[in-house]
Amino acid sequence: MQHALLVTRAADFAAWYQAVVDQADLAEESGVRGCMIIRPWGYGVWQRMQEILDRRLRDTGHENCYFPLFIPLSYIAREAEHVEGFAKEMAVVTHHRLKMIDGVLKPDPEARLEEPLIVRPTSETVIGAAFHRWVRSHRDLPLLLNQWANVVRWEMRPRLFLRTAEFLWQEGHTAHATAQDAREETFRMLEVYRTFAEEVLAMPVVAGEKPAHERFPGADNTYSIEAMMQDGKALQAGTAHYLGTNFAEAQNIRYQTEAGDLAFAHTTSWGVSTRLVGGVVMTHGDDDGLRLPPRIAPRQIVLIPMLRDKPEDASVLEYCEALAAQLNGAQAFGEPVRALVDRKAGRAIDKRWTWIKRGVPVICDIGARDVASGNVSYIRRDSARAGEKVHTRILPRQQFVEQIGALLGGIHEALHESARQRMLGNIRTDITGFESLAAHFRSADDLADEDGSGAGFRGWAKVAWARPHGAALAKVEQQLKSLKLTVRNAPLAQEPITDQRCVFSGEPAREFVLVGRSY
Amino acid sequence: MQHALLVTRAADFAAWYQAVVDQADLAEESGVRGCMIIRPWGYGVWQRMQEILDRRLRDTGHENCYFPLFIPLSYIAREAEHVEGFAKEMAVVTHHRLKMIDGVLKPDPEARLEEPLIVRPTSETVIGAAFHRWVRSHRDLPLLLNQWANVVRWEMRPRLFLRTAEFLWQEGHTAHATAQDAREETFRMLEVYRTFAEEVLAMPVVAGEKPAHERFPGADNTYSIEAMMQDGKALQAGTAHYLGTNFAEAQNIRYQTEAGDLAFAHTTSWGVSTRLVGGVVMTHGDDDGLRLPPRIAPRQIVLIPMLRDKPEDASVLEYCEALAAQLNGAQAFGEPVRALVDRKAGRAIDKRWTWIKRGVPVICDIGARDVASGNVSYIRRDSARAGEKVHTRILPRQQFVEQIGALLGGIHEALHESARQRMLGNIRTDITGFESLAAHFRSADDLADEDGSGAGFRGWAKVAWARPHGAALAKVEQQLKSLKLTVRNAPLAQEPITDQRCVFSGEPAREFVLVGRSY
Repeated sequence: MQHALLVTRAADFAAWYQAVVDQADLAEESGVRGCMIIRPWGYGVWQRMQEILDRRLRDTGHENCYFPLFIPLSYIAREAEHVEGFAKEMAVVTHHRLKMIDGVLKPDPEARLEEPLIVRPTSETVIGAAFHRWVRSHRDLPLLLNQWANVVRWEMRPRLFLRTAEFLWQEGHTAHATAQDAREETFRMLEVYRTFAEEVLAMPVVAGEKPAHERFPGADNTYSIEAMMQDGKALQAGTAHYLGTNFAEAQNIRYQTEAGDLAFAHTTSWGVSTRLVGGVVMTHGDDDGLRLPPRIAPRQIVLIPMLRDKPEDASVLEYCEALAAQLNGAQAFGEPVRALVDRKAGRAIDKRWTWIKRGVPVICDIGARDVASGNVSYIRRDSARAGEKVHTRILPRQQFVEQIGALLGGIHEALHESARQRMLGNIRTDITGFESLAAHFRSADDLADEDGSGAGFRGWAKVAWARPHGAALAKVEQQLKSLKLTVRNAPLAQEPITDQRCVFSGEPAREFVLVGRSY
Repeated sequence: MQHALLVTRAADFAAWYQAVVDQADLAEESGVRGCMIIRPWGYGVWQRMQEILDRRLRDTGHENCYFPLFIPLSYIAREAEHVEGFAKEMAVVTHHRLKMIDGVLKPDPEARLEEPLIVRPTSETVIGAAFHRWVRSHRDLPLLLNQWANVVRWEMRPRLFLRTAEFLWQEGHTAHATAQDAREETFRMLEVYRTFAEEVLAMPVVAGEKPAHERFPGADNTYSIEAMMQDGKALQAGTAHYLGTNFAEAQNIRYQTEAGDLAFAHTTSWGVSTRLVGGVVMTHGDDDGLRLPPRIAPRQIVLIPMLRDKPEDASVLEYCEALAAQLNGAQAFGEPVRALVDRKAGRAIDKRWTWIKRGVPVICDIGARDVASGNVSYIRRDSARAGEKVHTRILPRQQFVEQIGALLGGIHEALHESARQRMLGNIRTDITGFESLAAHFRSADDLADEDGSGAGFRGWAKVAWARPHGAALAKVEQQLKSLKLTVRNAPLAQEPITDQRCVFSGEPAREFVLVGRSY
């Protein structure tokens, strides 16, 4: 079977991912190590995500603000655990001027900074310093802030969207009077992310708590949403941290209680990033390219006029423009529909494949026959093929316009349901010992070796877990590493566990966790 | 007369500016040299500007994208004039890792970058490198891109919003087949900025061309919009550059013409920044604080329930919430109205002054009397005082709701008209020689010395200009410097000039230019 991409998911998932990102015009390497250029179509997807999530963050009481890109080295040094976790790979600014020296442009030795500045890898430290100034009384709490920003974490093996030195994200930072308030906030935001992933990205996720060794540096608890990609690997798609009083103590964020005492505030932080674009690609893409959930598609419907350099071309164009105007006047998901007439020069068939690869939910090829009959011929991108052939559907124009909201809603549902079935169908729950776990994931390696794909599909396993720590945890980490596995999270709202033994240590288990390979 | 601020514009304009920014919760120093924290109210203003301008940039055919924060030093070095103009003050990243050395966190000597990276001061060079890859044929042109980003230009004397090391902006970058197309684009974007300033910020501006010595480094022509602040100084509020083929030649941006030849593309760039927030403060602020044009006010109407810890409080709150819901269902400027009930703890009178200082266009104090009579008591922030007293107006509730769009529109008009009269009334057009120019602006210095205000108000002068260059220009620059003046721009669409002599050189003049002091 011929596909729009030269490489299929089954043949080489990593190469397929790269091909989708490239052919859908999402992003490309910039020539600056580890940094990507987000192209207009990719940025359009991110901007849609921003618009929708921003509204939800505001609706839950958060205000946007903006903190400096640079963090003085001394701020970073203050919170010991945070330093340990982040000190490794950061961009360090040491000079504030260039100078032409012997004909070569160089950092000016006379413009060396007294204190180096770090390009923020995350902003807890610099925002904590502001919280220290802003929080005086219990009346100042809760303080609920968010910022949309770029951050930098040096990456040795960058991959577009998934792992880049610079990425875009939102980071929420909040301070609360009590641990309970802060914990509630943490769960509230995790739930905002979960519903955003499901309702907007059509990406099913499991919300849960990270094990101790996977926590954010300086957090008391870290929670995540984990999505299953089409190669069975997990993508951590969003995190929320309860930071206890760790940052408050390091940065002296104290408030006067109603009783008049001084107490440390409890803080949280939480974020999602442009990584979500990569998650959408690997959740919904197929061998013809990207498939976009309609809510984040920059254009939900593209109308391609099939022109033949004949007099009837004018009426085809006119029909398309009138139809686009009708569609843009209609609503889907409570917003105006986003339709476009592709009037660029070029053959209609080439345009069709361009938009298929870009993942536009509904693509209409409009010819003289449609105009004559008052119909709309269209392709649903979520089910573009019937057997080997592209599946073109036809509806009377008025019916098409009237049903557009339902059509787009149906595409969202179909994408979501298909991904949900895949995820739920690929979590093994019958593995009770390390040997069977090892056999399950080792056979994935064999498969990978055989077909050269680099990764056999094995999904996740839900296994009993004793919450080891200290030396026991170190041993478990070794076991996990030998299978290239990580503990993804312990799903929330579990049934109480009884009579089960930890799959790693054989100790009495305290909960179930998901394990799998991951990005 | 008592004012909400401790310092007035007349007493000390610079201190007044600082007080407004502080008391309106717009921004503050971050502790990181030259970088500001944009607080939620200030960021809300910027986000409104973004939303409206972003729509206008898209409506003129531009697509958003995102390019790397870091620019390799060699890219910067490529365009000679650009280097000259920008090489001076930039943040230079030299290391990609920190390391604990003798108990102190330091840049790891083993993680020194082979090539230093510059934190972008503007993105012509890195975007040009992408244009080189993307532009192949005349069919690829025009290429119309925009990005919203942070940029860094080291500042020795930072001032919040007006001059900060890091600032937020949009930068448009376009490539065209012909000089004419690129020039048209440059003027189109200048006009987008001019109308945005007038229609959205209520800030009157003069659009014109910068003189040769004030051009963007590497540009053939630089155009600006200039606004007059309340101290008579000019604020450059936006710029658009026609870059000719300078960057295209430095970065080899060539395309195949229809005839099959290779030709250099013509490029443009243009931008506005968070500096506009400072411009709004200095255009509209008064001695009670900020006055926000309604289109960019994060909240256009704030309802303050006047509570007395009595049973009727419930009905006051209910009245406020119902009124807010009605208002939020109404439209102003083609968008839903943004009303808020301020339910925070605190005295109503304190809240009133908080919102006055923050510049909310309409502030309603709602008490039991309003509920009983079905009225709305409100203050128009653009004309908050009648004599010394706060001027409270009253309207029947239904009428208030019905007229809210017109009320907000009227506030915009009043702010705009007042600023326009001030600008037009303070451009001297009768100065024909350098001595009278010097006398005019020197007397401003005397005035400043007398009253200690630091700057006497003298506005601008529109004077004849011979477009000097070379040694003649150097001499004129000396003359200007002696008066702390700069040439702001040569207004567009001038009447042809005849029989006039340049106010500086006495040579035959070619056009009129505006001169003034500036930010």
